[in-house]
Amino acid sequence: MGQIRRHPERAVTDRGRLDAILDAGWVGTLAVSTAAAPQVVPLLYARVGDDILMHGSTGAGTLRAATTAGEVTFCVTLLDGFVYAGSLFSASANYRSAVVSGPLQPVSASAAEPALLAMAEHLMPGRAAEVRALTAKELAATTVLRLPIREGSWTAKSRTGPPGSDEDDDPTLWTGVLPLRTGFGEPVDAGADGIPLSASVRRRLEGQA
Amino acid sequence: MGQIRRHPERAVTDRGRLDAILDAGWVGTLAVSTAAAPQVVPLLYARVGDDILMHGSTGAGTLRAATTAGEVTFCVTLLDGFVYAGSLFSASANYRSAVVSGPLQPVSASAAEPALLAMAEHLMPGRAAEVRALTAKELAATTVLRLPIREGSWTAKSRTGPPGSDEDDDPTLWTGVLPLRTGFGEPVDAGADGIPLSASVRRRLEGQA
Repeated sequence: MGQIRRHPERAVTDRGRLDAILDAGWVGTLAVSTAAAPQVVPLLYARVGDDILMHGSTGAGTLRAATTAGEVTFCVTLLDGFVYAGSLFSASANYRSAVVSGPLQPVSASAAEPALLAMAEHLMPGRAAEVRALTAKELAATTVLRLPIREGSWTAKSRTGPPGSDEDDDPTLWTGVLPLRTGFGEPVDAGADGIPLSASVRRRLEGQA
Repeated sequence: MGQIRRHPERAVTDRGRLDAILDAGWVGTLAVSTAAAPQVVPLLYARVGDDILMHGSTGAGTLRAATTAGEVTFCVTLLDGFVYAGSLFSASANYRSAVVSGPLQPVSASAAEPALLAMAEHLMPGRAAEVRALTAKELAATTVLRLPIREGSWTAKSRTGPPGSDEDDDPTLWTGVLPLRTGFGEPVDAGADGIPLSASVRRRLEGQA
């Protein structure tokens, strides 16, 4: 990202590190080739084993199109910090990204509920145990899709660490990294007054502290 | 994103709101159609007027390919919070997203430096005034690209507010929104000991407080 030549981004070739990048994200970008500009849609996702799971309404046209499109590409990017160098040329960003291509396949009806529960566990850990079960009608209204992670069908990249430097740079100027952090804000109640925060949300807030 | 049917996402049709979404982000996903899965690459960007500006090394193959690809699609997604509903079916996310399609055009040599300075102002406000000027050699090694924002060539969406509810939901269960916040961490020095933090970084840290 940015100035690739001077700050070689490290290609991630280890499957475990790919998984770690995917597991650290919640939203990605799904792209489908067309004869013109690609169709692109942002989607919540979860990696479960060798699948990237996504879901949507059965009425969502882009998702339906994506399952018949041949191969799609899904991209997850995590911006970790701004890299302040001694020149704009060497300025950069620290980040992690994963790009996975392959056929987007509908998850069968019998596998849909466990897949949705696994997605929920990634996106809202512990919540599934607090809410009522999904109804048959709700399941019927939901499309669950999987993008298999296959050897040779993904790339991942990462940049970490300090800026590169150049002998022309002013040695008295501050250089370094300004990290970016994602955290949770104060929960906003939607229900009746006096209902205590769910344990799942409380644990999530404690986990970040 | 997620359950579209039950929680209609609001389409953003106002150009000012599109700009506000683009201006709130730093990184997006550039997709180029191919005969198979799209080529996708994450890139830093800045919106300047009617252009989305991106840059990279003149040696970067994907970017070169993108400029000859006809139309590309660029997507920016900002995840604003998790929406905890009374059921998984109604669970959702608050977010803002923008999708812009069009031809990716090289910025001319004479316009490249002002474009890079404008990008720097978005990504690292105030930094350009602190560092040495770009050299002719550095400019020659940098490709600057613009994706014009044209009427009818973009879509944007946004979800805000509380979860939807259902009469089957348990009224004693907490529901609401857990907001996501992006902030800066403690700067990590790269230079010699004792060099004070640059004013641009200090202002950025103060601005978030």
